[in-house]
Amino acid sequence: MQLIDGKAIADQVKQEIAAEVAEIVAKGGKQPHLAVIIVGHDGGSETYVASKVKSCQQVGFKSTHLAFEDTITEVELLAEVEKLNNNPDVDGFIVQLPLPKHINEEKVIEAIDYRKDVDGFHPINVGRTSIGLPSFVSATPAGIMELIKRYKIETSGKHCVVIGRSNIVGKPISGLMIQKGYPGDATVTVCHSRTKNLQEICLQADIIIAAIGVPNFVKGSMVKDGAVVIDVGTTRVPSTETKSGFRLCGDVDFKEVSPKCSYITPVPGGVGPMTIVSLLKNTLLAGKKEIFK
Amino acid sequence: MQLIDGKAIADQVKQEIAAEVAEIVAKGGKQPHLAVIIVGHDGGSETYVASKVKSCQQVGFKSTHLAFEDTITEVELLAEVEKLNNNPDVDGFIVQLPLPKHINEEKVIEAIDYRKDVDGFHPINVGRTSIGLPSFVSATPAGIMELIKRYKIETSGKHCVVIGRSNIVGKPISGLMIQKGYPGDATVTVCHSRTKNLQEICLQADIIIAAIGVPNFVKGSMVKDGAVVIDVGTTRVPSTETKSGFRLCGDVDFKEVSPKCSYITPVPGGVGPMTIVSLLKNTLLAGKKEIFK
Repeated sequence: MQLIDGKAIADQVKQEIAAEVAEIVAKGGKQPHLAVIIVGHDGGSETYVASKVKSCQQVGFKSTHLAFEDTITEVELLAEVEKLNNNPDVDGFIVQLPLPKHINEEKVIEAIDYRKDVDGFHPINVGRTSIGLPSFVSATPAGIMELIKRYKIETSGKHCVVIGRSNIVGKPISGLMIQKGYPGDATVTVCHSRTKNLQEICLQADIIIAAIGVPNFVKGSMVKDGAVVIDVGTTRVPSTETKSGFRLCGDVDFKEVSPKCSYITPVPGGVGPMTIVSLLKNTLLAGKKEIFK
Repeated sequence: MQLIDGKAIADQVKQEIAAEVAEIVAKGGKQPHLAVIIVGHDGGSETYVASKVKSCQQVGFKSTHLAFEDTITEVELLAEVEKLNNNPDVDGFIVQLPLPKHINEEKVIEAIDYRKDVDGFHPINVGRTSIGLPSFVSATPAGIMELIKRYKIETSGKHCVVIGRSNIVGKPISGLMIQKGYPGDATVTVCHSRTKNLQEICLQADIIIAAIGVPNFVKGSMVKDGAVVIDVGTTRVPSTETKSGFRLCGDVDFKEVSPKCSYITPVPGGVGPMTIVSLLKNTLLAGKKEIFK
């Protein structure tokens, strides 16, 4: 069993990005600039955003952190989005989700200029990813694809079982795994809460991608020997062992499953660190105008 | 075995559309208007377009048929698209594919105002369909979903195997079959040319949707008893029995497969007639501004 070290790969990719930014700036080019909008004080969101801003500094990006109270109206938030759309210095930006209930998330996402949509959530980017056109691929699926590439995991003709059909992981990663070329060309099965014979299907999988948000859902009895297991789950569960009082728990029962795997991602330190790195990569692409002119 | 009579369902849906159009017009509303652009003289395309225009007349739509020689430049064609985008009388329009090699199809599709994109090929509609937002769903997958609905075929928790990963059928139908609600909630496996154990996977299918364009590809040995088989293939093969000198052949070996099925679509007369009907439905929705204001 080989552990997929997402932290190490993320550090490596960050170094590559930092080197490229240094080169761009040395040649008199523009420093990539990511803006992040956060609304309210959700603990998880604030941690993520702080981490994103810190990562920007690490790779030499300019970053703007815009925090609003959860009393902001939808109209006001849409005006802030419009300002960033029109700010030529901002290459890409994201609106951290979730938003307060009185704001329509989809409306906000669709208001973002798709050429600056580095989260890849705008329908144009979702559609272009599906069709196979250049696009901003959303961060978590892009991070998974990068891990598969860096570990040279074979995907062509492999049976990949995706557990979960969310818009941000299950659906896009399924689309990427069936696309032509590497990493892709996999036979993909998408399972979810309505799937009846989940164990039977999982036992056929050469690659399992678990993205349901249910701690320890994938058991050893569901995994065949030699499978590759990618765990996207990051549920916070109470813990007496950490200062914060919680720890991150994956969708895979690591103790039971890991001995059977050829490769497996741990939680934390697997897919998680790659997510922010994918956002940085998209911002670099936005700065270089590589996806959209 | 019950035959899914796409012709009969298509006629029924056309009558429903015609009744609705008559009611709209009787109330002083606007007659829905579909425009079709065709470039060159591809035999298949000319037949399809003629059939689309005729169907418009049957349901009481206004239709505009714009035919250009294949000497038209990309710039000229884009200008025609722009004219239709700006014509307030045209509710929806399509550019019949394929286009001549000197014209970038994707560029033309993306130039269509997504609010008039009744073929559902624009990335915004592809993305919105994937996310589960209101959208113009492309005609063939929409037609398949309609057949499933009209025949009240159970899909929740069923294993649906899609053979083919094309942008116009395989990918979108997979996305629709995993969506929440009915028809949907299926466990979906997407197979394609790189799939290794196709027979084994197909034998698990409660529903097979074949969309690869290889005549008689799905054999009796690949289908379990009681399966539902939807045949999207419409390859023209030479025939001495028809005046035209060819006949349409599906992806399913009907003689071998049909005795094992609970339901099966014939070719012709299955999915084919539903495709045009879905285009008419999208045009009606466009006329009523039901998807986009």
